[in-house]
Amino acid sequence: MTGPDPRDDAAPTAGWRAVDLIAAKRDGAELDEGALAWLIDGYVAADGPVSDAQMAAFLMAGLCRGFSDAEAAALTRVLVASGDVVDTGGLPAPVVDKHSTGGVGDSTTLLVAPLVAAAGATLVKLSGRGLGHTGGTLDKLEAVPGLRTDLEPDELHGIAARVGCAVAAQSPRLVPADAALYALRDVTATVPDPALIAASVMSKKLAGGAPTLVLDVKAGRGAFLPTPDAARDLAGRCARIGHAAGRQVAALVTAMDQPLGTAVGNALEVGECARLLAAPPRGRLAAVALELASHLVAAGRQADAERPDAVAIAAVRDELARRWAEGEASERLRALIAAQGGDPAVVDDPDGVLPHAPVRRAVPAPRAGTVRAVDARAVGELVARLGAGRAAKGEAIDPAVGLRLHVEVGSAVAAGEPLAQVHAREDAAADAAAAALLACVEIGEEPVEAAPLVHAVVG
Amino acid sequence: MTGPDPRDDAAPTAGWRAVDLIAAKRDGAELDEGALAWLIDGYVAADGPVSDAQMAAFLMAGLCRGFSDAEAAALTRVLVASGDVVDTGGLPAPVVDKHSTGGVGDSTTLLVAPLVAAAGATLVKLSGRGLGHTGGTLDKLEAVPGLRTDLEPDELHGIAARVGCAVAAQSPRLVPADAALYALRDVTATVPDPALIAASVMSKKLAGGAPTLVLDVKAGRGAFLPTPDAARDLAGRCARIGHAAGRQVAALVTAMDQPLGTAVGNALEVGECARLLAAPPRGRLAAVALELASHLVAAGRQADAERPDAVAIAAVRDELARRWAEGEASERLRALIAAQGGDPAVVDDPDGVLPHAPVRRAVPAPRAGTVRAVDARAVGELVARLGAGRAAKGEAIDPAVGLRLHVEVGSAVAAGEPLAQVHAREDAAADAAAAALLACVEIGEEPVEAAPLVHAVVG
Repeated sequence: MTGPDPRDDAAPTAGWRAVDLIAAKRDGAELDEGALAWLIDGYVAADGPVSDAQMAAFLMAGLCRGFSDAEAAALTRVLVASGDVVDTGGLPAPVVDKHSTGGVGDSTTLLVAPLVAAAGATLVKLSGRGLGHTGGTLDKLEAVPGLRTDLEPDELHGIAARVGCAVAAQSPRLVPADAALYALRDVTATVPDPALIAASVMSKKLAGGAPTLVLDVKAGRGAFLPTPDAARDLAGRCARIGHAAGRQVAALVTAMDQPLGTAVGNALEVGECARLLAAPPRGRLAAVALELASHLVAAGRQADAERPDAVAIAAVRDELARRWAEGEASERLRALIAAQGGDPAVVDDPDGVLPHAPVRRAVPAPRAGTVRAVDARAVGELVARLGAGRAAKGEAIDPAVGLRLHVEVGSAVAAGEPLAQVHAREDAAADAAAAALLACVEIGEEPVEAAPLVHAVVG
Repeated sequence: MTGPDPRDDAAPTAGWRAVDLIAAKRDGAELDEGALAWLIDGYVAADGPVSDAQMAAFLMAGLCRGFSDAEAAALTRVLVASGDVVDTGGLPAPVVDKHSTGGVGDSTTLLVAPLVAAAGATLVKLSGRGLGHTGGTLDKLEAVPGLRTDLEPDELHGIAARVGCAVAAQSPRLVPADAALYALRDVTATVPDPALIAASVMSKKLAGGAPTLVLDVKAGRGAFLPTPDAARDLAGRCARIGHAAGRQVAALVTAMDQPLGTAVGNALEVGECARLLAAPPRGRLAAVALELASHLVAAGRQADAERPDAVAIAAVRDELARRWAEGEASERLRALIAAQGGDPAVVDDPDGVLPHAPVRRAVPAPRAGTVRAVDARAVGELVARLGAGRAAKGEAIDPAVGLRLHVEVGSAVAAGEPLAQVHAREDAAADAAAAALLACVEIGEEPVEAAPLVHAVVG
């Protein structure tokens, strides 16, 4: 449906009516960008012609009938056009950005940002806060004493130019229509539409201004999407939107069944990253970060918009692992933290700089066996209950609380051996968290096969 | 979905959330009556927990996924419970009611009401006004000088008891939730859901209080539903809702491709009915009215809730035709009009009592041939433009304007012979209507077969 015939000399949209566009979507039609822009702009504008009820009906019709790739790409452009776009001009190329759909113990940004900076790329990232069982990069960074994420555009640009990376809070002037739509979707059961999710994710990435993007789409019980197939579908939608906008996009579908790192909790995760960067990459968190960074740098260095081949990515992976091992990434993290007002000594002495929780409680294994599963969602929820997360936007969090896992899927444990150490503010909270952690860890007789860390690369 | 588990000692609905019920419907679940009542009541109540946006999303989800018969019946009960119910106690049995989904030149109520009263039944009908291309019974009755339709409940009951029939405007205290929902559906493209339409129709009929109902579901280009199949589906849904509520219901699917009567316009239709009742039944309008009345009276006289058989209906049809021919229905119409404040002389001398339009314009046939179609919708629209109808609720109408058709499908016409006579307020309007009427009448060479008047009887 492309709108009514021009009826008079008035504006070309004079004949639009929200009810007709809703009916078209209800009947399975594909709307063009003009119609979508009229709807979204007419919804977001104060006293615009599209009501809450009409936008809700439109979104539900689209969820039920499906949005096409062309609609998702058009919707993304409309969202981007609703606000400011970050100016990445003048920054050392390649300029890159990453996004994760959210996980538990997943602090890859704290590793990827300094790593790609060490390789000569510039990462400019606007980030969100944690909600529910997943953590947020801003919360983690702000666990470092003094560190600020409320950077003005000039400040962000200057730090990125000087350090090679900068991470700031998303400005409300960026993609305001997405925030308005999301608030409506949240109360009308229209969140879980893959095209709307992809448009929301990609609108923020396109407004972020980087020509090269990597997406980390999590799949598993600790992720928004439980299955690799659903995650692969979302990854494909995001990549196609990015390509339609002329960006280089690689979307990795990665495992989020167990927590990715060994730490869950804001200060604890910063400490883990600092320690990881002090030695050659090891473990699952480092592996995923290295993979994301390799795709970013390899794509950013391509002369054309083609996807780099496996040989190019492997070469970059070797280079990044070397830079990591030689301390270049660690040095970039130190510079990033200092530039954003934090105490850079945290990189070399995390325990001396980061806040501590007063109560520590070891959680002993109730029996011997093999760890068969660690429920990432339940771990995220128990850590949020300790005070590390928030149930609703705007709540205060406790940077110090969380837990360190001593086991992962496949670990052999003896009875009484500690599975984890809980860091809590009070005894009662520590007891509750320890009991909850026991229910998250499944110990069995049979050995388990290692599951893949990366299910697919799309883009 | 039957709602959350009881969580505490609070009211059993303390755990409901609109977003969860919308999500359940979005995912194809069937909601029970408790959930539907919570949603509808929570929407209609001032400051209730269900917003416009949430109700719109719920309705669109239901439209896309479908409402079951059980949901439609439950929804109907919830709507009825939102307001008053007409007390038909003490009225001479059988107490009956009819409903039409709306047509053009369709004044069957003005014939059915006095006819069933003549046969000893009591018809109590709450009616609406015309909207768009279809006419409304209230507008037609009010073309009679002095006649009132704003009857209080006691007055309505008294007239029905004395005359055997009464027709009043629907009170806003009757089924207020339906009015609130309809206003929302109208702007959110959620009108055309067959279950919601059936629930809306039947809620008003159930609140009307009559135990025996006949529905006239129109099919064709002048009807809300274009095809007999769609009309049969709606008829079946309405009948099942009525049966679930313990009512006798017959739903007739009747043709609405050409106007049903020869007059279209409020006073003109009253005049046609008065003249029809002065002689034995003849023509399509009389035939449909006789059929509707026969089903009503036959069902009302059944000792049980079973549907009367064809023999019983045929016997009643013969009886009613005899009463009609002997002037009994005409006498009842006179009594109905007098009881509601109108001038009863209109029945014997319609032209002397009813208002006249000053301009009359004959519309000559442009060529000889056979009338192959008369587009009921287009005729309804041109008569509405003359001033007989309204584009929006609350607009004033002109009772005198309209047209008389001199032909119907199958008529042979000579070139220059009048197809119709337009009754207008001004010359320009008459010219425009005459030109529009020519485009409504298709004249061809081939003879046409007569189409059935009644496509199906459901119930």
